[in-house]
Amino acid sequence: CCPPGADPAGAGYPTVTVNGFFHADAIFFAQDAANAAVVGDAQDVADFRRARLSAKGEVAENVSYFMEYDFAFPGRPSFMDVYVDVADLASIGNVRIGQFRTPFGMDAMTSVKELTFLERALPTAFAPFRQIGIELYDTALDERATWAVAGYRFPTNVFGNASGDSGYGCATRETLLLYDGPCNHTLHLGGGFTYNQPSGNSAILRSTPEVGFSQLDFNSTVFPVPFFVDTGTLAAENFQVMNVELAGSRGPAVAQAEFYFATIDQLNGTQARFHGAYAQVSYVLTGEYRPYLKNQGVYGRFTPHTNYGKAGIGGWEIAGRYSYLDLNDADLAPVGAPPGFAAGGALQDLTFGLNWRLNANTEFQFNYIHAFLDRPAGDNSDADILAARAQVDF
Amino acid sequence: CCPPGADPAGAGYPTVTVNGFFHADAIFFAQDAANAAVVGDAQDVADFRRARLSAKGEVAENVSYFMEYDFAFPGRPSFMDVYVDVADLASIGNVRIGQFRTPFGMDAMTSVKELTFLERALPTAFAPFRQIGIELYDTALDERATWAVAGYRFPTNVFGNASGDSGYGCATRETLLLYDGPCNHTLHLGGGFTYNQPSGNSAILRSTPEVGFSQLDFNSTVFPVPFFVDTGTLAAENFQVMNVELAGSRGPAVAQAEFYFATIDQLNGTQARFHGAYAQVSYVLTGEYRPYLKNQGVYGRFTPHTNYGKAGIGGWEIAGRYSYLDLNDADLAPVGAPPGFAAGGALQDLTFGLNWRLNANTEFQFNYIHAFLDRPAGDNSDADILAARAQVDF
Amino acid sequence: CCPPGADPAGAGYPTVTVNGFFHADAIFFAQDAANAAVVGDAQDVADFRRARLSAKGEVAENVSYFMEYDFAFPGRPSFMDVYVDVADLASIGNVRIGQFRTPFGMDAMTSVKELTFLERALPTAFAPFRQIGIELYDTALDERATWAVAGYRFPTNVFGNASGDSGYGCATRETLLLYDGPCNHTLHLGGGFTYNQPSGNSAILRSTPEVGFSQLDFNSTVFPVPFFVDTGTLAAENFQVMNVELAGSRGPAVAQAEFYFATIDQLNGTQARFHGAYAQVSYVLTGEYRPYLKNQGVYGRFTPHTNYGKAGIGGWEIAGRYSYLDLNDADLAPVGAPPGFAAGGALQDLTFGLNWRLNANTEFQFNYIHAFLDRPAGDNSDADILAARAQVDF
Repeated sequence: CCPPGADPAGAGYPTVTVNGFFHADAIFFAQDAANAAVVGDAQDVADFRRARLSAKGEVAENVSYFMEYDFAFPGRPSFMDVYVDVADLASIGNVRIGQFRTPFGMDAMTSVKELTFLERALPTAFAPFRQIGIELYDTALDERATWAVAGYRFPTNVFGNASGDSGYGCATRETLLLYDGPCNHTLHLGGGFTYNQPSGNSAILRSTPEVGFSQLDFNSTVFPVPFFVDTGTLAAENFQVMNVELAGSRGPAVAQAEFYFATIDQLNGTQARFHGAYAQVSYVLTGEYRPYLKNQGVYGRFTPHTNYGKAGIGGWEIAGRYSYLDLNDADLAPVGAPPGFAAGGALQDLTFGLNWRLNANTEFQFNYIHAFLDRPAGDNSDADILAARAQVDF
Repeated sequence: CCPPGADPAGAGYPTVTVNGFFHADAIFFAQDAANAAVVGDAQDVADFRRARLSAKGEVAENVSYFMEYDFAFPGRPSFMDVYVDVADLASIGNVRIGQFRTPFGMDAMTSVKELTFLERALPTAFAPFRQIGIELYDTALDERATWAVAGYRFPTNVFGNASGDSGYGCATRETLLLYDGPCNHTLHLGGGFTYNQPSGNSAILRSTPEVGFSQLDFNSTVFPVPFFVDTGTLAAENFQVMNVELAGSRGPAVAQAEFYFATIDQLNGTQARFHGAYAQVSYVLTGEYRPYLKNQGVYGRFTPHTNYGKAGIGGWEIAGRYSYLDLNDADLAPVGAPPGFAAGGALQDLTFGLNWRLNANTEFQFNYIHAFLDRPAGDNSDADILAARAQVDF
Repeated sequence: CCPPGADPAGAGYPTVTVNGFFHADAIFFAQDAANAAVVGDAQDVADFRRARLSAKGEVAENVSYFMEYDFAFPGRPSFMDVYVDVADLASIGNVRIGQFRTPFGMDAMTSVKELTFLERALPTAFAPFRQIGIELYDTALDERATWAVAGYRFPTNVFGNASGDSGYGCATRETLLLYDGPCNHTLHLGGGFTYNQPSGNSAILRSTPEVGFSQLDFNSTVFPVPFFVDTGTLAAENFQVMNVELAGSRGPAVAQAEFYFATIDQLNGTQARFHGAYAQVSYVLTGEYRPYLKNQGVYGRFTPHTNYGKAGIGGWEIAGRYSYLDLNDADLAPVGAPPGFAAGGALQDLTFGLNWRLNANTEFQFNYIHAFLDRPAGDNSDADILAARAQVDF
């Protein structure tokens, strides 16, 4: 008689862990008259920037899963990382299927729970970020290097769906840990490339000044934080970006920089070119350090020596960043705009940050941002932004 | 060499517990002709009034969190209590940051899982309820008193967000346990005040007859339960309410009453005044009692001596309530209405309730409500409402 | 002095387990010109067909609950099974209150995590499926039979809500295990009936060709997979369906068939009649078998002898299905259409399936579907569909 099949319960699988975190933010704007005229009156905001719950675990020795939803993002809830991982498939590497952050950019690959500032730097606007598809990835050289390549449908909406007879993309990122000394002494080099053929031949590049919502909030009629730079909708054949990463750390100090160069081949035959970059430094005053995460090729969070409470003051960190995003190009041709209308704008941000980590899982962050904006319709406008965040994760 | 920081994993933090509950309701209406004419034809409804999942836990000895979403409320899911608590901050008290029920009103502070009736009393329409902000709170006098004060953005939407250059509020509630005798013999006195400057200078007060949805259901085109009283949108400078609470218990009997007085300073310079109150009594036939929760200043649930099943019949409770909400005022000036149009209406409800608690976490509730409505457009109309609920919580 | 009531904490209740699963699909269409003309151009899709999280547990020895939400379905999240079960109520049977799959149809009662193909067969379009209401159910004859009867509000929307002064339905299903031999040798007979009076007197029957979304996707402006057959909205007094089920298994082989007959009494006095059926066979090449689940009256999943990985190749299954759905009827009178306009269409699908189960909780499924469509506006059109799915459940 035929046996019925293995007993899955005996193996201790599947496992499940519930995790989550939220970012409760308060943002205050002070714009000069030129800035209010060109981008509109930015409202002061108190909001949940992110609020996520996830389940993760293993269903077998070599298969794991992750399901994460954001209840604060447009979509409410939006699909975040929702995928299954099969380890060591045919000795090539690990395979990931579902929606995930496509491998491109050091800042984009850093978890939002471990960012030095409230938001990623301006050039993150170039990254394809979360899409539905398939990825191959692994470490190499005894965990001194990482590689990843992904193919996906593009663009994927906030529910993890993509449709259309066209609409595909690919992205790749490679990193190398050049130096790996004692006491958090590291030197990191990385680079990436992405090619995207958007379904509907429609592309748009834009960014807020490193605060607030970064995506279209289609459930609200009022969008509280305006985009400071914005190409408008472009009729695009494809959209390509390359970037280079350079970073290093020594004890409680970390420095990190990236440069991005993007091209959009427009349906009218011309190519528009954009670029952006950032450089940031941070220093933990209380002496803890942000470790280098070898399997991800990014720096992580620091954990206080002593928690805030009767025994201590927690951990304190200061940080500074310069970033810019230049979306001006003479060949830029937004749909419905006159030819040669280089309307995207160029934005520079200077940010000073103060982070108070009460314990491993609670952090209060404070950012002061000065934004310099150049747009054809309003040159040389300025805005000052104060932003505070309470973060707890579990 | 610098040490890396503490190991968070060793401390047993963070902890996480998943909780939830739902309310499955069936509501049947019988309106007289005048009532149907003035508020519209109320449809019979079967629905999930509330359906919540939450994660809560501690991330350190002195820091805890709560994340709760409601999948049945408008917003689907809506943000409920989403906050981080830091205990004993600088010896002042506990600090709460995020979205929470602002401290105002004994009925509003009672958990919906422990309500005597299906819904809170009519004057709850005056409470600011959940907003995003910061709260200080603690107990005093050896847990015989509680105090709480909160500042917040107002109004906060169902996703926990608020924006606008104006739009702030504050609320406070203080309670005192005057008598704390044996065998659930208690006497409670309390009071509160709230001041709110709505963003957009827009305020509205309204209520259904203590059944069904109590908030704008913007995802449905058909709103099944009509508002019986409704001021319409008011152009308002500010909105203030004060209330007093008096309650007591003796064994299985509980009595509770509140009075509310509200003023709205309208942009036209006039002040509109409203008031409301309720008084309710309940008695557990099977002898269990609702304990007084000292740290919250409210009465909780009763737990049956024997569960329903082979061994017993569970716990049975009867209850009665009178409540009213008077939204008429000669100075009321809804936007777009002629001056002096006192259109809010006055509503009185008589409710009889029967609660069958099968075990600590399962309850069937039955309410019969007779609603008396006076509105300018239709005086002296009546409606009879039968409502049943299945509740399970975990 | 009165005792306070039992201590619920001592009993070990409530319990809670978090579960979930997702279906990440890729679908590719090849339509002939006639098919593209009559149903429109079907777009290639990559999407999350289903993505669910649930909490389940017990709150007492005889009371359990289930709360499940789908983050991919329209509604996002949609209410799935959300109910409380009370066992052995008054010796009649088990009682279920809330939203659940109404008892009708063997395919509909089979969990989507255990389907042989990506989607249920075409005639599932006749099943009322999930509604809010109350159900009585149990097994009989020493678990050789099951019975279930449910009364509910109809139709229930994706949030578990129904309203209207009319709008009720009932459904029932009975099954019998005729033969229960060794080594998964079984013979199953079943049948069901459902009567529904839709609120608003509005009914609609329709189906995609066994791929993609099966319900109205009201959050997307573009609905990627067209309905191949569609009656249009019918002004209906009531909607009735009966069905018969016949199925059997022998070791790794399973065969299953159902026939459905439906009538709609239209408000114009005429009755429209429809029918559909399917027959399917499956065989697990690696020898495992799909067990018969006696308390549900359906076949379950097979579990590989050896997991995919170093030790093995997992389990492999092949399957075939023929199904049809005939929505043509001379008396069909869609709202706004001329009398006698038999517009529903008749669809036949031939499906070949290949399932690779890596372990008990991970499966990759591949379906090739050939769809034959007859509609008045375009006779004899064809479409070929390739669909792949990654499923992980926990």
